[in-house]
Amino acid sequence: MKKEVKISQEILTQLKAFPCTNILDVLRAHGYLKVYMEGVRSLIPGTQLVGRAVTLRFLPQRPDLQEETVGKENTPEYRAIELCGPGDVLVIDAMGLPYASVGGDIKFLRLKLRKAEGIVTDGALRDTKSLKTYGLGLFAQNSTAKAGPMDILPYEENVAIQCGGVLVLPGDVILGDDDGVVVIPQHLVHQVVQEATEKEELEQFIKERIIAEKVSPGKYYPPRESTQKLFEEWKKRK
Amino acid sequence: MKKEVKISQEILTQLKAFPCTNILDVLRAHGYLKVYMEGVRSLIPGTQLVGRAVTLRFLPQRPDLQEETVGKENTPEYRAIELCGPGDVLVIDAMGLPYASVGGDIKFLRLKLRKAEGIVTDGALRDTKSLKTYGLGLFAQNSTAKAGPMDILPYEENVAIQCGGVLVLPGDVILGDDDGVVVIPQHLVHQVVQEATEKEELEQFIKERIIAEKVSPGKYYPPRESTQKLFEEWKKRK
Amino acid sequence: MKKEVKISQEILTQLKAFPCTNILDVLRAHGYLKVYMEGVRSLIPGTQLVGRAVTLRFLPQRPDLQEETVGKENTPEYRAIELCGPGDVLVIDAMGLPYASVGGDIKFLRLKLRKAEGIVTDGALRDTKSLKTYGLGLFAQNSTAKAGPMDILPYEENVAIQCGGVLVLPGDVILGDDDGVVVIPQHLVHQVVQEATEKEELEQFIKERIIAEKVSPGKYYPPRESTQKLFEEWKKRK
Amino acid sequence: MKKEVKISQEILTQLKAFPCTNILDVLRAHGYLKVYMEGVRSLIPGTQLVGRAVTLRFLPQRPDLQEETVGKENTPEYRAIELCGPGDVLVIDAMGLPYASVGGDIKFLRLKLRKAEGIVTDGALRDTKSLKTYGLGLFAQNSTAKAGPMDILPYEENVAIQCGGVLVLPGDVILGDDDGVVVIPQHLVHQVVQEATEKEELEQFIKERIIAEKVSPGKYYPPRESTQKLFEEWKKRK
Amino acid sequence: MKKEVKISQEILTQLKAFPCTNILDVLRAHGYLKVYMEGVRSLIPGTQLVGRAVTLRFLPQRPDLQEETVGKENTPEYRAIELCGPGDVLVIDAMGLPYASVGGDIKFLRLKLRKAEGIVTDGALRDTKSLKTYGLGLFAQNSTAKAGPMDILPYEENVAIQCGGVLVLPGDVILGDDDGVVVIPQHLVHQVVQEATEKEELEQFIKERIIAEKVSPGKYYPPRESTQKLFEEWKKRK
Amino acid sequence: MKKEVKISQEILTQLKAFPCTNILDVLRAHGYLKVYMEGVRSLIPGTQLVGRAVTLRFLPQRPDLQEETVGKENTPEYRAIELCGPGDVLVIDAMGLPYASVGGDIKFLRLKLRKAEGIVTDGALRDTKSLKTYGLGLFAQNSTAKAGPMDILPYEENVAIQCGGVLVLPGDVILGDDDGVVVIPQHLVHQVVQEATEKEELEQFIKERIIAEKVSPGKYYPPRESTQKLFEEWKKRK
Repeated sequence: MKKEVKISQEILTQLKAFPCTNILDVLRAHGYLKVYMEGVRSLIPGTQLVGRAVTLRFLPQRPDLQEETVGKENTPEYRAIELCGPGDVLVIDAMGLPYASVGGDIKFLRLKLRKAEGIVTDGALRDTKSLKTYGLGLFAQNSTAKAGPMDILPYEENVAIQCGGVLVLPGDVILGDDDGVVVIPQHLVHQVVQEATEKEELEQFIKERIIAEKVSPGKYYPPRESTQKLFEEWKKRK
Repeated sequence: MKKEVKISQEILTQLKAFPCTNILDVLRAHGYLKVYMEGVRSLIPGTQLVGRAVTLRFLPQRPDLQEETVGKENTPEYRAIELCGPGDVLVIDAMGLPYASVGGDIKFLRLKLRKAEGIVTDGALRDTKSLKTYGLGLFAQNSTAKAGPMDILPYEENVAIQCGGVLVLPGDVILGDDDGVVVIPQHLVHQVVQEATEKEELEQFIKERIIAEKVSPGKYYPPRESTQKLFEEWKKRK
Repeated sequence: MKKEVKISQEILTQLKAFPCTNILDVLRAHGYLKVYMEGVRSLIPGTQLVGRAVTLRFLPQRPDLQEETVGKENTPEYRAIELCGPGDVLVIDAMGLPYASVGGDIKFLRLKLRKAEGIVTDGALRDTKSLKTYGLGLFAQNSTAKAGPMDILPYEENVAIQCGGVLVLPGDVILGDDDGVVVIPQHLVHQVVQEATEKEELEQFIKERIIAEKVSPGKYYPPRESTQKLFEEWKKRK
Repeated sequence: MKKEVKISQEILTQLKAFPCTNILDVLRAHGYLKVYMEGVRSLIPGTQLVGRAVTLRFLPQRPDLQEETVGKENTPEYRAIELCGPGDVLVIDAMGLPYASVGGDIKFLRLKLRKAEGIVTDGALRDTKSLKTYGLGLFAQNSTAKAGPMDILPYEENVAIQCGGVLVLPGDVILGDDDGVVVIPQHLVHQVVQEATEKEELEQFIKERIIAEKVSPGKYYPPRESTQKLFEEWKKRK
Repeated sequence: MKKEVKISQEILTQLKAFPCTNILDVLRAHGYLKVYMEGVRSLIPGTQLVGRAVTLRFLPQRPDLQEETVGKENTPEYRAIELCGPGDVLVIDAMGLPYASVGGDIKFLRLKLRKAEGIVTDGALRDTKSLKTYGLGLFAQNSTAKAGPMDILPYEENVAIQCGGVLVLPGDVILGDDDGVVVIPQHLVHQVVQEATEKEELEQFIKERIIAEKVSPGKYYPPRESTQKLFEEWKKRK
Repeated sequence: MKKEVKISQEILTQLKAFPCTNILDVLRAHGYLKVYMEGVRSLIPGTQLVGRAVTLRFLPQRPDLQEETVGKENTPEYRAIELCGPGDVLVIDAMGLPYASVGGDIKFLRLKLRKAEGIVTDGALRDTKSLKTYGLGLFAQNSTAKAGPMDILPYEENVAIQCGGVLVLPGDVILGDDDGVVVIPQHLVHQVVQEATEKEELEQFIKERIIAEKVSPGKYYPPRESTQKLFEEWKKRK
């Protein structure tokens, strides 16, 4: 694990140009195979979410711990929300429980007021009708009317968590669209943006060739040495 | 189980002011922990369903019982439909089988003509394109093109059933929205409406405070004695 | 298995008049009970898909076989795509794996250019935002950002496959709508169209009777000898 | 549904000669396709269970109904147990919930003392270490340490239920072994015993031929007209 | 969360007298409803496991973190093992992944040599044939031949974890038998032992009454005031 | 895919020395990550299965294809069985359907008579009580009393199949034990045996060191350069 400085708004803005698929392909080439969250979906189809992860870890409910973590002013979930601002995404480990609500329209009103980017959880969100009006990106496994405290408690904030089967560290970058959610390890973000830009252009080239030549994608795709060579020439011509 | 008179249209209208989340919180405070249907969703997002339950219980298909329950004029499912009118919801126990259709556009045409409110099932609905034009609330686990009779048979109407893991008695009140479906036991409906009204107002107050003071929700939420006190003062001032 | 000639565009056009439910009922009467794909859904609600199946069989990834089937010009998946044109649907056996992508916007660009009707798979599609703009019918178990080659490889084209728990032979006819996907064995297509036409009319008659007489559907439905007799008279009158 | 007299001990004894597979094949030939319980297993491998069903129906927990059905002397579950004696099996509908306990060593001690044959449920049994010493056949989906009353309540006894996806009527005959549990509708029991006897003999004949002739089973199996003819001759010779 | 001293061997020995069911009932009476691990089973039926929890938390695999946590001398999993001795159980959070191995016969050889009591995980164990000879209690969701490092990495030891849907703190007491695994919060252990002793005696009394009086368990069970009174008299007589 | 000669009995005998875990680790080092069958278990715990795969592919039931594949003398399943002899394992693709039986005591009697090694399927086996007496290795996802032909049909033999999520080619080598089933691609078998022998010895060395030195496994395991060096010295000394 390498120490990293906070990812800038500029980089986040650049990331908005890419679909999750592109970023995932780039990360796979670096040996990162477990960076796509299974089962986590946008509750507002068509939206995109980009931001730095602020993390929150839930654990199963237990009366003696609930006193410390629920119903007080300064609890892990409220501390996590206060850590979020513009460019930040609250990423919540709900242990993959589809029925476990991590919060609703009162708690996340504050997230909206703090101008955070959105919420990602492998549990459920509640009050989704209200939440959808907040302008936040909402990515979850489920929506529910149930409240969380019977099932889970917010245990600690800004630590390493799992979410949707992916390890997330505070400061990692989250990218979400209709295909799901990808986690970009912080120290790779700059490199990923660079390689994704190149990849996007290459794929654009390939699509143009397929259309122009009326050939099977197999002639160029997946990209091979020959594809790459033609791509370099095409870039020069442009 | 307490005997109850039929819930009035007036109460049903009042209930339309509340989201499922609010009602569920009120019921939990009364010790009712299993009143939210898992896995049952609105097939027409954005709609709300409120009504008294008329129940229908399906059992697995068996040739000797099918003769009595399918393909005749006066079967449990048709009797159940005839029990429905304005203010009523047909709630169907399909044993949680995602592939089991409880009916389609011919059967439920009658429900539309009888001006019932809608259908709730933990099985599947078919002909959903047509059904969606009927003006009925449609809440199910799934949609399917398959017909039901190979798998299930309508065994009896207006008895105690389970649906989505919740016990439903005829006359209980059903509330459905994008967060799912809640069952309000009949004898609690009046009290629930009263407490939900209070709760809605309290949450409105809390949201206003969070916005006005620019503070963490933790200062007021979940409501504590201090929250309650300020709320009472706020109500007086209003 | 009976040899059949290619289903004509005219028949395909006629099939567009029917919902999957109707066709499925007709097939069941012929003893075809496993012709509805479980878990395969339209990614573009409201669309209908009709076409002849061109099939593609994926198997689990294995390095020694991957060389032959991925990353070359003439692989099973590209051969399958080149077999598709107007009136054809690419049906892909992904072994029911919800996380396994069978392709995205580059591969299926060619399918669009070849004016095929659409794609059906019991796996996942990626780049769905782009794909949805192609005018193809898209039916899958899931959408994903992951690429397929880590998990599966395209093994052979135009052979018998399973998809969504249904056997599909090349040349069978696919019908998809919001209720799911039905497979019509090739040798039955003409008969199915004829019987479905009759069935559609009969159901129209029944609906009219239910509306006109203000009676329970049970009087006529499911259709019995008496229903059939009245229907014949009604047809004569028309 | 046809009225039937109670199945005799003699018939039950005859049934012990057959494996579930044989009985299931016979029932399928009568059009009974949903008589095998999915997911219900013997907790004591190697044991066989035969008996008449006494049924018990559980529903989801709800406080107002729990008063009537739990914690009193004369509740549905205790009434069901008192209906059981030699030759009887208690069949319990737990709605297929793997975590829901229907009882443990105190409740079912009475079943042992009443000399019943065993228990079948699609829920869970608890105190299984003690239960296994009772000499009862134990077939369930799961074992658990949890108690049931938080989740489910015994609602009524000796009514039609589902168990493991099969409809069970009081008086139906239950057959359980290491391959699972089969339900024989009461009015078919005599015929099933007769046909199963014939089938068992036929399969014995086929096995002998396969061994003697050193041929593929395909020569005789599945039994065809030619197989049947040779079988009749073999029976005569015997 | 209350600070507690280490549970003594004497208390652990006393706990061996109780089945999980009894302990779970006692904990429920204290409001502890989520202390039974779902899906975690003994790999050696008939064995019992009692001990203090030493915890280990796994997270999803990620290359940059793997360097720190795998393949070195002093990693979280080895530190956790060195914390175990007589009276200790290694409890491993594998995020409920049935395919994820937390270790096999080399790693856990050390646990055997350190005379620990056993292993509990909601993931999988490998090399189970060898492991079963070690004299350790083995409770897991699954056994597998796969190695863990492709999927998960040991992130930290002796922190709060979830395992099988239960919160476990270091020092909590684990009880496992054929009905599954129960977690006793450390500060409740003494009280639980006391109440379980009483409960065991009460149940013994009830069983004796049921046998002696030939009555339905409902007369005494679940225990009511009248049961309790008779029990007190019975204790005095003894 | 490389052409290979049939694996000799001698190699199969050598393979019996290894647990699945060891072989799986060796294969992973060669980049083979999908060679372990998920969910396929020994029905006779404690047994080991080693043999060359003869494959059989099932597809979903369909009346027009059933005529060709079921109920005749020379069908794919009977042809597959006749291909099996000593050293062979019948590996059956049942599309991972837990309820789908691929055969019982009559069909597999022939396999026993042909002295084959056993059966592997990701579906179910029936008549398991009889089957267990045949001396065959039995690895399946499930046992059932249901017959297969309502659900699936044997489509073709000795082709590439999937089983338990693994690609299997005819002639590949199957290894099964209590940890599950591993598939060794044919062209790698000799190398795998060699490397597994080395690995087994290395692990033996590590275990000896852990015992002798009373140290954490972390000192030697996972094996590093230093471990390897000491191992080489140890081998020389032996």
